[in-house]
Amino acid sequence: MTDIGEWLLKVRGERPLVHNITNLVVTNVAANALLAIGASPVMAYAEEEVADMARLAQALALNMGTLDQRVVAAMRRAGRAANDAGVPVVFDPVGVGATPYRTETARTLCDELRLAVLRGNAGEIGVLLGAGGAVKGVDAAGAAAGLPQAMRAYAAERGCVVVATGETDYVTDGKTVWALRNGHPLLAAVTGSGCQLTAILGAFVGVAGRGADVAVQAAAVIAGITCFNVAAEMAAARADGPGTFQARLFDALYHLTPEDAVARARVEVLDEGRMA
Amino acid sequence: MTDIGEWLLKVRGERPLVHNITNLVVTNVAANALLAIGASPVMAYAEEEVADMARLAQALALNMGTLDQRVVAAMRRAGRAANDAGVPVVFDPVGVGATPYRTETARTLCDELRLAVLRGNAGEIGVLLGAGGAVKGVDAAGAAAGLPQAMRAYAAERGCVVVATGETDYVTDGKTVWALRNGHPLLAAVTGSGCQLTAILGAFVGVAGRGADVAVQAAAVIAGITCFNVAAEMAAARADGPGTFQARLFDALYHLTPEDAVARARVEVLDEGRMA
Amino acid sequence: MTDIGEWLLKVRGERPLVHNITNLVVTNVAANALLAIGASPVMAYAEEEVADMARLAQALALNMGTLDQRVVAAMRRAGRAANDAGVPVVFDPVGVGATPYRTETARTLCDELRLAVLRGNAGEIGVLLGAGGAVKGVDAAGAAAGLPQAMRAYAAERGCVVVATGETDYVTDGKTVWALRNGHPLLAAVTGSGCQLTAILGAFVGVAGRGADVAVQAAAVIAGITCFNVAAEMAAARADGPGTFQARLFDALYHLTPEDAVARARVEVLDEGRMA
Repeated sequence: MTDIGEWLLKVRGERPLVHNITNLVVTNVAANALLAIGASPVMAYAEEEVADMARLAQALALNMGTLDQRVVAAMRRAGRAANDAGVPVVFDPVGVGATPYRTETARTLCDELRLAVLRGNAGEIGVLLGAGGAVKGVDAAGAAAGLPQAMRAYAAERGCVVVATGETDYVTDGKTVWALRNGHPLLAAVTGSGCQLTAILGAFVGVAGRGADVAVQAAAVIAGITCFNVAAEMAAARADGPGTFQARLFDALYHLTPEDAVARARVEVLDEGRMA
Repeated sequence: MTDIGEWLLKVRGERPLVHNITNLVVTNVAANALLAIGASPVMAYAEEEVADMARLAQALALNMGTLDQRVVAAMRRAGRAANDAGVPVVFDPVGVGATPYRTETARTLCDELRLAVLRGNAGEIGVLLGAGGAVKGVDAAGAAAGLPQAMRAYAAERGCVVVATGETDYVTDGKTVWALRNGHPLLAAVTGSGCQLTAILGAFVGVAGRGADVAVQAAAVIAGITCFNVAAEMAAARADGPGTFQARLFDALYHLTPEDAVARARVEVLDEGRMA
Repeated sequence: MTDIGEWLLKVRGERPLVHNITNLVVTNVAANALLAIGASPVMAYAEEEVADMARLAQALALNMGTLDQRVVAAMRRAGRAANDAGVPVVFDPVGVGATPYRTETARTLCDELRLAVLRGNAGEIGVLLGAGGAVKGVDAAGAAAGLPQAMRAYAAERGCVVVATGETDYVTDGKTVWALRNGHPLLAAVTGSGCQLTAILGAFVGVAGRGADVAVQAAAVIAGITCFNVAAEMAAARADGPGTFQARLFDALYHLTPEDAVARARVEVLDEGRMA
């Protein structure tokens, strides 16, 4: 588990440029989360520049929380440019399943682009993978029973990392499934905590380098989730509710040490029996 | 007044999905205010999905703070779908009177849609109702003398609740006019406090149920305003200025108890003599 | 230096309406920064109303952080209306140099509009003026050696105030170059601190009045930067990291006194020898 700390140091050392095409709710907080962890965020949406920006970046983070035609077109263009240049793409299918438009768009992006990481809440990932689960607006309203296996099968087929977050977070590279048990209930009481994590995963897979193996990207993702969730635990200890929690979360991301992250990490491999 | 507490418990218990088509300034804080009070926010703008989302929601909150053609088209489409499905619609005519475009748009939306609640600051409501008053950008710059009567006449004609906020907030269902005297001056020092309230009114009228009587919706609105303003009072007591106040406001909404809301509520019926 | 305090009192007294066409990352915080210092922000983007709103305002602040075709068209239209009405225009060429689209757009706006103030980080201003420097996404990645001279030449040619911010901030009216040394490293750890400053400069040049001389506008700009950076110093003393810093920054702007600003101001004229 020591390499969680090394991944954090790598982010701080390289200060990766993460190009975000994200939703209107979280634009500010996603940028602040990236700055706080030590990365360099850029938000760019115009068709005229998204390909240029994606090629310059160390990662591209796509989030369809407030999608529309223009945003979807920008995501496709940026995603193709990133794929061509070997820049890893993280995709967050916010609210997939809530409306047909979201479901179709999420499926199109997953099929057209080569994703490094697919991350959603358990409801979203269940819906997207056809494994069951439910979504209420943009919140998970139920997880499928066989979600970890469905995630592993999808990850193996597509050659990407799949992440479903919730009280326990599941991560798989198509071979192994990990269960991550850090975090805090206040994360569900602020808007866009999942979107902030998606942006941060861009920073971590960004420093894994272009063309990194999916197993290496999974290690980066596990480190990113753990750093974010450990910071949330530390923030919650100093917060009086969701408002002060969000402010303290940026503080905690900024001050997080590799030692904190490693000492508090709760990562385990999920064996076959416990997946069912 | 005890039912203010019951309305709050109802929001917490039902966790109503509130579909917001709101402005770029407050997207994040409106979502956080809804989460903090115990509701489930969703922001969706695309013409392809707004009707679907509005029908799924327990309330639709429209806010024209940063309107443009596409947003207005989305509001009209979502509003009609909500009307057809009996989902209550809350409308916030931000900055009406500041430019002809805002004034025309606000009038069109008021005329085309069947609103459950119309809420603005005293300047905006005065301008929109043709009762006088003034607007400077998006801030009230003066209220009309006969505003409560004009509000009551409009509410009676349209069968909706009309709310004008300010140091004193006025609410009417077309028969009675209430004066609400909770709140804190720091609300005027953070952007979008009125917009946050509009979103929260969506949660309260949402739990009144589809097809609720205007008098019931007025009770829900009075409860929503009072909960928000009492939370603001409690937040102000722990804040050092507008920045910490906004964070503390989310904390206070999250921790607000029915007892606090009831004990601090300052709601009175405005008699004819005092309306003039 | 006493007039820094007078400029602050003038902003608080006049409560200038500042029309912002800004980016999606900072819409909320730019509005809150303006409210906190005592100005009245309005955000308006629609082609149908930007000219009307710009004419009503005491200043127009343009920021291309998340530009697209529609935003650029709105900026051009609002800018021309402001120019025609004598309303001062502040322009922030966020990320110029990062992509060809940003560079072309920034040059077009600078050439088409008569700017009162051009403000960017040292990397952006260097790129825009053809003086060297580099940009990484939207962050400065290096400043040109002869930047102050290049700024002075450009300011003299265009008759505007040019500002390049960084650890030291440079301001010139085309004759004198000032070096301003207030501020705090946490400003670089929150997103959009430069954009918040741009909005605030709108308030300060706004109270300089229509048609004010460039030297007077430079004095307003120096006061605005100093007030913002002194507030940042005071906020940092009470913050635990970037999240609490942003909240405390609004508090500090709100409570800033003319005496604080004057006592802490570090403004000096840069002589020829030290510019090289």
